Amino acid sequence: MTDAKNTQIFLKKRPDHIPEPQHFDIREVDMPVPQAGEALCKIHYLSLDPYMRGQISGRHITGTVHEGDTLLGQTIGEVIESKHDDYKIGDMLCFHGGWQSHAICNGTQTSLVDPRIQPASLALGILGMPGLTAYAGLLDLGEPKKGDVLVVSAATGGVGSMVGQIGRIYGCRVIGIAGSAEKCQWAVEQAGFAACIDYHKENVAERIDALCPDGVDIYFDNVGGDILEAVIWRLAVGARVVLCGLMAQYNDDKLPPGPNPGAIIKARATVRGLVVYDHVHRQADFVSDVLDWLADGSIAYKEDVAEGLAQAPESFCRLMRGNNFGKTIIKL
Amino acid sequence: MTDAKNTQIFLKKRPDHIPEPQHFDIREVDMPVPQAGEALCKIHYLSLDPYMRGQISGRHITGTVHEGDTLLGQTIGEVIESKHDDYKIGDMLCFHGGWQSHAICNGTQTSLVDPRIQPASLALGILGMPGLTAYAGLLDLGEPKKGDVLVVSAATGGVGSMVGQIGRIYGCRVIGIAGSAEKCQWAVEQAGFAACIDYHKENVAERIDALCPDGVDIYFDNVGGDILEAVIWRLAVGARVVLCGLMAQYNDDKLPPGPNPGAIIKARATVRGLVVYDHVHRQADFVSDVLDWLADGSIAYKEDVAEGLAQAPESFCRLMRGNNFGKTIIKL
Repeated sequence: MTDAKNTQIFLKKRPDHIPEPQHFDIREVDMPVPQAGEALCKIHYLSLDPYMRGQISGRHITGTVHEGDTLLGQTIGEVIESKHDDYKIGDMLCFHGGWQSHAICNGTQTSLVDPRIQPASLALGILGMPGLTAYAGLLDLGEPKKGDVLVVSAATGGVGSMVGQIGRIYGCRVIGIAGSAEKCQWAVEQAGFAACIDYHKENVAERIDALCPDGVDIYFDNVGGDILEAVIWRLAVGARVVLCGLMAQYNDDKLPPGPNPGAIIKARATVRGLVVYDHVHRQADFVSDVLDWLADGSIAYKEDVAEGLAQAPESFCRLMRGNNFGKTIIKL
Repeated sequence: MTDAKNTQIFLKKRPDHIPEPQHFDIREVDMPVPQAGEALCKIHYLSLDPYMRGQISGRHITGTVHEGDTLLGQTIGEVIESKHDDYKIGDMLCFHGGWQSHAICNGTQTSLVDPRIQPASLALGILGMPGLTAYAGLLDLGEPKKGDVLVVSAATGGVGSMVGQIGRIYGCRVIGIAGSAEKCQWAVEQAGFAACIDYHKENVAERIDALCPDGVDIYFDNVGGDILEAVIWRLAVGARVVLCGLMAQYNDDKLPPGPNPGAIIKARATVRGLVVYDHVHRQADFVSDVLDWLADGSIAYKEDVAEGLAQAPESFCRLMRGNNFGKTIIKL
């Protein structure tokens, strides 16, 4: 036994709308002890993602976080004690460790972090679940072809920034939608988008009309709400829509309605729902391609890193307000 | 020249909601004279279809009917005078002749009625556009597999009745949704559906839950509105939704919202918009298969026939009220 403690962030009170830091709290508990088939990891990086709001609301397929529960989340952890045959001390694992300083890993949904991935935090971003979401969602569901007009919302986020850049590599003309002039500038200057619409300052429908006179061939939607409504009426015939995220409604208790289905008929569009866990068979292709693109400079990335587990509530709330810029990461 | 007159039904006043017969009127005009490349046809059958309401509202891709215009519609006509090289007197043509006793056919979107099709009115129904809509929509967009649970709304209409029966032939368990006990009885007893829900008398959501405990694999939607909302939250993972018609909103000036996109993500569903004109390349397969199914008794059909062009307004209004039963046809 050791006197060392494990620090956790837990849900203190379920928020009704946009979460605030006071909905969360921090606690120390006894250090967990690995049993046979388990490894104890010290967490180095925690990923904060919009889907976590759905877990708090009890409507996400990956599970529900109740009041009093430690928050869930993907992490990069270093093995410090192992009773698991596959993991040895010093290994870096990507697994669902949650919002805490230490976590037990039993091998479920776990991968060794490819040593080519530097810094390891990228395994939570462009080389992790958000990257795979973008890669499989765009390539397998969006079916990009050279010359397609691709529109992506939350365009500088963990998923959106990769969607746009992979689309560009595949020959699409990429239009982003993001929430500040700074984000739009990054999308165009660093990520190579053809244009980026600032939805706080510009009328999205009018800008899409102006930028996409022949309509939108692929819409990769990370937000739902008014932006989905604006884009879906501007699809080209035969368009594909990938529904990935619903940021516009994660903070609402009641589900708002969606677009009239006539928009889909009008465009003879194909609309597909994306859940990344259906696409893990694409992991090897994905890592190989993205490492190549990183190496040859085809892909830019931006991380929004805060240091210290205690920063996680504020960082997550900032993400929920749309004030993050890049993939949100906590470095422990 | 001849003194014979052509009788037409025209739009007298655009309806705001469900059309009434007084929104239409009848008139006699001079008999049209075919020019080079045209044939004059005597109309024998006129098809009445829900999409016509969209033409009256000015939001259908096939064209707009303004006040004073003769209504548009697909017809079977017999050539009585021909200056078109391909058509001779006595030929039966399927073409867009409109709501009138005689029409000029210039060969646009025209086909000779296959002489195996008896009565020729079937070329407007199960062997015509509604049948092709069902055939291509279900087989190419719905991707039926043996054992799939297929739900179809407007289940005894021109499209829905064929969707359900083709699904049954392909090994699906078919659940219909229709608007009367008589229609539901026909769907089960004549068309071989496993069950049929009377949406006027039963709670569609509860009945789907009871009849489809593992969810709906294919939903072929002819209505939109509350029925789409009920079914889309009950999809199985990997479900396909074919959006074909929006009967629930054709009579509304303002487009209502649709289902929350979260339903599509939850089921990782594929939702496709169907416009039959994209699928004319399937015509030969379609006619061949349906003639075989008719010959071997696999397919039942029901026509709702009224005699005389003057009956067209009342028949169409009845269709718009959901009081038709079977494919609505006017026999001239």
